Amino acid sequence: MKKVAIGIDIGGTNTVLGIVDRDGNLLSDISMPTQTKETIEEYVSDLVQKINSLIKSSKDKIEIVGIGIGAPNGNYHKGTIEHAANLRWKGIIPFVNLVKKHYNVPVALTNDANAAAIGEMIYGAAKGMKDFVVITLGTGLGSGLVVNGELVYGHDGFAGEIGHTLVYPDGRQCGCSKKGCLETYVSATGMVRTMSEILCNSNKPSSLRDIPYNQLTSLSIQKALEAGDELAKECFEYTGKILGMKLADTVAHTSPEAIFLFGGMAKAGDLLIKPTIKSMEENLLPIFRNKVKILLSGLLDVNAAILGAGALIWNEIEK
Amino acid sequence: MKKVAIGIDIGGTNTVLGIVDRDGNLLSDISMPTQTKETIEEYVSDLVQKINSLIKSSKDKIEIVGIGIGAPNGNYHKGTIEHAANLRWKGIIPFVNLVKKHYNVPVALTNDANAAAIGEMIYGAAKGMKDFVVITLGTGLGSGLVVNGELVYGHDGFAGEIGHTLVYPDGRQCGCSKKGCLETYVSATGMVRTMSEILCNSNKPSSLRDIPYNQLTSLSIQKALEAGDELAKECFEYTGKILGMKLADTVAHTSPEAIFLFGGMAKAGDLLIKPTIKSMEENLLPIFRNKVKILLSGLLDVNAAILGAGALIWNEIEK
Repeated sequence: MKKVAIGIDIGGTNTVLGIVDRDGNLLSDISMPTQTKETIEEYVSDLVQKINSLIKSSKDKIEIVGIGIGAPNGNYHKGTIEHAANLRWKGIIPFVNLVKKHYNVPVALTNDANAAAIGEMIYGAAKGMKDFVVITLGTGLGSGLVVNGELVYGHDGFAGEIGHTLVYPDGRQCGCSKKGCLETYVSATGMVRTMSEILCNSNKPSSLRDIPYNQLTSLSIQKALEAGDELAKECFEYTGKILGMKLADTVAHTSPEAIFLFGGMAKAGDLLIKPTIKSMEENLLPIFRNKVKILLSGLLDVNAAILGAGALIWNEIEK
Repeated sequence: MKKVAIGIDIGGTNTVLGIVDRDGNLLSDISMPTQTKETIEEYVSDLVQKINSLIKSSKDKIEIVGIGIGAPNGNYHKGTIEHAANLRWKGIIPFVNLVKKHYNVPVALTNDANAAAIGEMIYGAAKGMKDFVVITLGTGLGSGLVVNGELVYGHDGFAGEIGHTLVYPDGRQCGCSKKGCLETYVSATGMVRTMSEILCNSNKPSSLRDIPYNQLTSLSIQKALEAGDELAKECFEYTGKILGMKLADTVAHTSPEAIFLFGGMAKAGDLLIKPTIKSMEENLLPIFRNKVKILLSGLLDVNAAILGAGALIWNEIEK
């Protein structure tokens, strides 16, 4: 019997789930739409069917050691999903308890960025590190902090929201209701806002002037840069400048060995990392300088969301 | 035999040390000037004499369980004092090893704010809390973070430098070489800078206009406020506004149950705490609102520096 975990990542559009072994191999996976069912009970019922069909279709004889779940606004302490803006089910959902009705194994839940951090620790580039941070760069900016080898959940289970630290008072409007949050500058959508601002303020030519705001993406900005677009370069430099400035604050808090960048935008690699390092070093207290690595996630090209959710449960049962 | 710890706090001017029992009683204490000796070896030799005379003069029969030390730029992992700006001995001093030559008991060292946080956890108002932050408000702003019941030392042993997070790019010049650090706004010296700025910008009368800059203190500003000075009130409100804004960033990192204010300036109590809470709440991600307490340290009126250093060693041997 091969011991395996079930990893589930609940996204606003799709839910992906898979069977993950202790070495980080995704043995099989499957996906389903997240929001077609009106009630959370119906959704869980569909999810259970998917889990069962995954297990049935397994070629190996497997033993499920537990179920790990990454979900927006996932509360690790309570096993709940609380007031998730991008899910149709409102309020506080006792998600772990709903799943536990069907399986007699440990079930754990956290948000997707925390799951990514645990994935990085168990399977990725943070293996053996005790103090590190993972920054997930997608539509928003998520983060997971590891201190003394343990994920930081905080008193209420929601720690690690670096995307909502303040860059500029009265800065850009954030989806969270505040203004000036880091993720309004540093994320795929933040980069589009920055690019648009640069296009307004400059009168240099740019191929990006032919793309409507709604079709601009961080990837189109990256491609323009690679084709020599000066304003696209400015956009990446500004993004790295803001990210580095705020990461210096993060270092002042927990002094990590490394900060990993994860998500589509991270694939820009040095285009983003170089200006980020420059700005972080300028903003670091001298005692922290030239000590903290900024690295790409070791899980960039794999199904990291499922792996992270699976890692959550491996981490749990090995504590 | 009563089990006791030796707590030592090394300040820029004086070194204070005492005998501390497990319940947080300071059984006896003594002080000596820090910087009269040219070499660190001579200083340690004096310190050892003081420790021995403390032990000798004890009325109870005592057994020393260990020696805890709070020192500027104290590195917990290495037991070193590194590049401390306000000490005459430069470079990296292997302080724990120097002390260990004289005593066959555990010796541990950290910076004063971390020692204060451990003191708060073992003896103070944070007893039983697993996730909290201590902010020490003196000439500068120090901080100690506790996560999952453990002090956050970070990869390099220097974590918890919230005083050097960024308020405004190109803001006030800080002693650390950077500009715009939190402690240039929120600390005893920061308040004097703010008060002076307010006096320049306003033309309202204020009793503080009769005090030269070099004689202004956070206490004189507090007294002016208590006597009804409007500009002094503005100064406290501004200080609380900046502190609350940055504490919201701290909450986004580690989501603590409480944040304790410690040090002389904290004695202003609600004058400082109320505007701090108001500003922190305004800057918190909605999910964190109305959850995080801002409280006065439970060790405000005792010799907290020695107690904190003593607590460091109690915490060490009880791990």
